[in-house]
Amino acid sequence: MASPGPIAEHVATMPLIDHHVHGCWIDSVDRTRFENALNEANTEPVSADDAPFDTQIGFALRRWCAPILGLPVHAPADVYWARRAESAEVDIAHRFLRAAGVSDWVVDTGLPGVADVDLLARWSGSAAHEVLRLESIAEDAVTRGGSYADAFDEILAERARDAVGAKSIIAYRGGFDGDLTDPEPAQVEDAARRWREVGGTRLTDRTLLRFGLHRGLRLGKPLQLHVGLGDRDADLHRTNPLLLLDFLRTSGTTPVMLLHCYPFEREAGYLAQAFSNVYVDVGLAVNHLGARAPELIARSLELAPFRKVLYSSDAYGPAELHYLGAQLWRHGLAKVLQRFVDSDAWALDDALRVAELIGSGNARRVYGLTGDVRLTASAR
Amino acid sequence: MASPGPIAEHVATMPLIDHHVHGCWIDSVDRTRFENALNEANTEPVSADDAPFDTQIGFALRRWCAPILGLPVHAPADVYWARRAESAEVDIAHRFLRAAGVSDWVVDTGLPGVADVDLLARWSGSAAHEVLRLESIAEDAVTRGGSYADAFDEILAERARDAVGAKSIIAYRGGFDGDLTDPEPAQVEDAARRWREVGGTRLTDRTLLRFGLHRGLRLGKPLQLHVGLGDRDADLHRTNPLLLLDFLRTSGTTPVMLLHCYPFEREAGYLAQAFSNVYVDVGLAVNHLGARAPELIARSLELAPFRKVLYSSDAYGPAELHYLGAQLWRHGLAKVLQRFVDSDAWALDDALRVAELIGSGNARRVYGLTGDVRLTASAR
Amino acid sequence: MASPGPIAEHVATMPLIDHHVHGCWIDSVDRTRFENALNEANTEPVSADDAPFDTQIGFALRRWCAPILGLPVHAPADVYWARRAESAEVDIAHRFLRAAGVSDWVVDTGLPGVADVDLLARWSGSAAHEVLRLESIAEDAVTRGGSYADAFDEILAERARDAVGAKSIIAYRGGFDGDLTDPEPAQVEDAARRWREVGGTRLTDRTLLRFGLHRGLRLGKPLQLHVGLGDRDADLHRTNPLLLLDFLRTSGTTPVMLLHCYPFEREAGYLAQAFSNVYVDVGLAVNHLGARAPELIARSLELAPFRKVLYSSDAYGPAELHYLGAQLWRHGLAKVLQRFVDSDAWALDDALRVAELIGSGNARRVYGLTGDVRLTASAR
Repeated sequence: MASPGPIAEHVATMPLIDHHVHGCWIDSVDRTRFENALNEANTEPVSADDAPFDTQIGFALRRWCAPILGLPVHAPADVYWARRAESAEVDIAHRFLRAAGVSDWVVDTGLPGVADVDLLARWSGSAAHEVLRLESIAEDAVTRGGSYADAFDEILAERARDAVGAKSIIAYRGGFDGDLTDPEPAQVEDAARRWREVGGTRLTDRTLLRFGLHRGLRLGKPLQLHVGLGDRDADLHRTNPLLLLDFLRTSGTTPVMLLHCYPFEREAGYLAQAFSNVYVDVGLAVNHLGARAPELIARSLELAPFRKVLYSSDAYGPAELHYLGAQLWRHGLAKVLQRFVDSDAWALDDALRVAELIGSGNARRVYGLTGDVRLTASAR
Repeated sequence: MASPGPIAEHVATMPLIDHHVHGCWIDSVDRTRFENALNEANTEPVSADDAPFDTQIGFALRRWCAPILGLPVHAPADVYWARRAESAEVDIAHRFLRAAGVSDWVVDTGLPGVADVDLLARWSGSAAHEVLRLESIAEDAVTRGGSYADAFDEILAERARDAVGAKSIIAYRGGFDGDLTDPEPAQVEDAARRWREVGGTRLTDRTLLRFGLHRGLRLGKPLQLHVGLGDRDADLHRTNPLLLLDFLRTSGTTPVMLLHCYPFEREAGYLAQAFSNVYVDVGLAVNHLGARAPELIARSLELAPFRKVLYSSDAYGPAELHYLGAQLWRHGLAKVLQRFVDSDAWALDDALRVAELIGSGNARRVYGLTGDVRLTASAR
Repeated sequence: MASPGPIAEHVATMPLIDHHVHGCWIDSVDRTRFENALNEANTEPVSADDAPFDTQIGFALRRWCAPILGLPVHAPADVYWARRAESAEVDIAHRFLRAAGVSDWVVDTGLPGVADVDLLARWSGSAAHEVLRLESIAEDAVTRGGSYADAFDEILAERARDAVGAKSIIAYRGGFDGDLTDPEPAQVEDAARRWREVGGTRLTDRTLLRFGLHRGLRLGKPLQLHVGLGDRDADLHRTNPLLLLDFLRTSGTTPVMLLHCYPFEREAGYLAQAFSNVYVDVGLAVNHLGARAPELIARSLELAPFRKVLYSSDAYGPAELHYLGAQLWRHGLAKVLQRFVDSDAWALDDALRVAELIGSGNARRVYGLTGDVRLTASAR
C-alpha cells in the first residue's frame, strides 16, 4: 500500500467524540454470545449460514481488532476467539476503549447488562456523558400514582440535570408514519391509565410515545432519534426519516440528531439541509459495512452541511466495537476526503477542517461539551 | 493530477443544452441572500450550523467559480464574497453565463425575480427557449370569468405557441401518490368555482392540478415534472417517481421529462427503460453534491437508455449556478465515462457519442431545437 | 490494462451455479425481437429513443459477446447482428451456454417459448434443475374439479418430486404490501370458485396467491421470490422486500431466496442479516447495469452475511444473456474483492473463499445439489 497521505495521518490521531454509544460488556461471554453480538438485525440465535465471522463486520474485526490483542491482521476467527478468551473482559475493555482515541463518550444508558457511564469513563480514561431514554422515563413514570404527565416531568427534570441529551426509540415502537403531534393532556392521562391497567411494562402506546417525544423536544437538549438500521423488531421502512417531515416542520430549535440512518442516509442528509436543527450520523452501519464503510461515509457527505454531520459507533457489548467504529470511520473518512482532494475538488485545508468538525467539533458544540480532552492513551 | 484524457478534453468544450433552468439575478444581493441561495431545501433563513459555504455546493463554488472572478481555485469564502461584491450583477452574469458553454437554455419561467428568457439569451449570447408552468396558467385562468377549462385552454394555446415544453410542479402541491387521472369536466368547473370563492391564488386543488397535468400531456410538447430534491414544502417521499406508474401507463407518446430525481435517480432510470416516452436528468442535485456529483451521474447511467438522459443545471438566482452545473457535470461525466473506458467496458467512441447525446443531442431532438449553435464565448 | 490479479484469475475460471435462470431461445428471431429482449421493463415494442443497443446492456453485449462470435470487442451493433444472423439459434446457444462456465442451471420453467430444462442441460453440457412456479400450479389446479386445495397439493407433490425449489411471482400480481398470511381453507375454496366462474386463467386473486405462497413455504425447498426490477406490469415500489417483514417473521426455516432486488439490494441485504432463512442475489440487474455492475455487486456485499448471497443471471431468451450474466458477475465481483484486498480490508484467502461461496458453494448447499461438476467446455 502507498503512504496514507496527510489526511489519513491527521484523521488517524485526532481525538473523537462518539456521540452515540452504549456500554461495553463487564463480564466474559461465550463464543455464541460474542458472535450474536456481531449481528444487529437478527433477534434470534444466528444459524450456521449467518456465520457472523463471515460478514463485513466479522472480516473488519479480524482486520482491525486482532492487532490490539497482539495477533496479526486478518487472524482467523478461531485464533481470534481463542486469544480473546484468555483475557478478562475488563482487560479487553481497557485495551479497546483506550485504543479508540475517543475523548468523550455520549452514552445511551437504555440498554442493559453493560458498563454504565462511570465505568465506561473509568475503563477508557476519557469523559463520558449520559443521554436519557425517554421510553425508560415513561416506564418509570407509569409506576407512580397521580398524574402521569407530572410524574414524567418530575423524573425527566431530575435525570436531565446531568444529561447532555435525550433519545427516543419510537422507531422501534411503531415507526415514524402516522401522527407524531403532541397529544392533549387528557389523552395522555387516559392512555397512562389504560397502560397501568394492563400492568405498564414495555411502552408501545402511541399517545405516550408522542408525549415523551415532545417532552424531549421541549427539554431543549439534543434529541436523538433512532433511524433506519436496527433489529428486525422494527419495520425498517417505517423508520425512513422522511416520515418525520411533519414533526420536523414544527420542531423548533432543539437539535434533532438522526442516528444510523442506513439505508436512508441520503434522505437524512436532505433533512439536515432542509432543517436548521437537524443533524445526522451513520453510526452502527459503519461497523456493519466494514470494507464498504467508505462508500457509506461518502454518501453521508452529499446534501448535509458539514456542520451537521457527526461521528458515532453505536457500539454495544463487545468493546471491540467501540474501537472498530472509530477505526473504520477514521480510515473511511480519510479515504473519501483524500479522493476529494486528489481530484482537486476540495482543498486540503478544508478536508482537514471538515474531518475535525465531524470527528469532534460538531458534537462538542451541539452537546455543549467542554474542550477538555482527557485522553490517557494515544489514539492510533 | 494526471492528464485528463480524451474524454475530459472533448466534454470540457462541447456546447451543452441546459434543458431545465431558471433566470439569474438581475440586481445585486447581500451576502445573506447569496448564502441562502446555496441551500435548496431550507425555506427559512439558514443558521450558523447550516453554513452554506461549508457544504459540497459551497466548496464546489469556491473551486470552480473563483477562477472566473480572477481568484485562485478554493479561494476562501470571505475572499470570494468580497470579490463578487465588487461587480454589478450584470457583469457577474455575463461572465458565468458565457463561461458555461451552453448553446441553448430551456427556461422555466415560473419563478420570480430573475432574468426572463430574452434577458438570459442576451446576457449569455446563446439561444433561450421557454417552458410553461401549468400551475401559473391555472392561476391566471381562475381570474377570468366563464368556463375555467376554456380559459385554461385559451391561455395555454396562446402561450404555448412560442414555448418548447410545459412543466408541472404537482410534486410540490400534494405529491404523486393518489389519483392522477384526468378529471371529469363537471368536476373541474366545480373545483374552479370553489377556488374562485376562496380567492383563487396559489393552486393546491388536486382536481385542478390533475386537469392541468393532463392538458400539459395533451399539448404534446415535452412535459417536465419536478421529481425528488426540492425544498421542504414538498413531502420528498411523495415525489418518488415510481408513484407515477399509473399515470405513465396511460401517458401516450408525449415525452415526460423527470427532473432532478435525487435520491430516486435509480427509480427514474427504471422508468426511462420501462416507458418509451420517459426521460430523466439529475440536474440541481449535481450542483448540490459537488465533489460527489460523479457518483450521482454514474447512478443515472444504470437502467436509463442513453437516448433518454439529459443535462440540466436547474440554476436559479446566482449566475454561478448556471456555470457550476455545467462544470460539475462535464467533469463528473468525463470521470465516469473514462472509468468505463479504462476498464475496457466501453469503447472510447461510444463514450464520446453518449456524452454528446446527453450533453445536447437528446435535448435537441426531444425539444425540436435547431442545431444553430450561437456560442459567443469559448466553453471552458 | 494492468494484470487482472489473482482474484480475477480465480474468479474467471471457477464453475458457477446460476441459481435463477430461464431457457434460451430455440428458434431464430428477427432483430426487433432481439432488441426488445434487451429491455426488461418495457412491455411494449421499444421506440427509437429506447435504442436497446445504446444502453449499458447493449454496450456490455458488444463488449463481452462479440468475441464469442469471433468479432472484436465492442463490434458495432450492425456488425454484431449480421454475424449473429448467420448462425442457427442452436449454434448460438451452444457457444454462449458453454462459454458461461456454469456447472448447474437452476431453471424457472414458468416462461414460455424457450428451451426446457433437458434441452438447456443438453445444449450447455451442464446439469440443469427445475424450480416450480407456484402460480402455474394454481393455474392448472383451477382447471380440475373438486377441492382446489387438494388439486393444488396433488399437482405440487407430483411436480416437486424432481424440483429443487419453488418460486412465487406475487410481486407481479399485486406486490408485497397488504396481507400475506395463509388464508383459511374456506376462503381458498371460495376464491377458487369465483376464479373458476370467470374462466380461471391468469391468477391475480390475492387469497389464492397467498395460499400458493404458503404451500411453497411448507414444501421446505428453497422458495424464490421475485423482488424489485422487472417489467412495468409490476408496481416496483410494491416489490420493496421490506414489505415482506411480517411474512418473513413467520416463515420458519424454509430458505427464502430474494431475487434481483434492484434498486432495493441494500434492503434485501438487511433482511439476509435479520432472518436466518433469507438469501439474496442481484441477478438480472447485473446484466442490465453492464459497466455499472461492479457497484451493484459491491452494494450487495454490505449487510448480507456472505453465506447468504448467490449468483444468478436471470437470463431469458438470447443465450448471450446466460453468458453475459456470468462474465459481468465474474469481472464485477473480482474488481470489488480486489479493491477490498488492495486496501488491506480483506485478506486474499478470504476473498477467494467468499467468491467460491457466492459463485457456487451457497447455492450447492441451500439447494442440495451434488458437487458433481459436469463442465464440458473450459470456463473463460
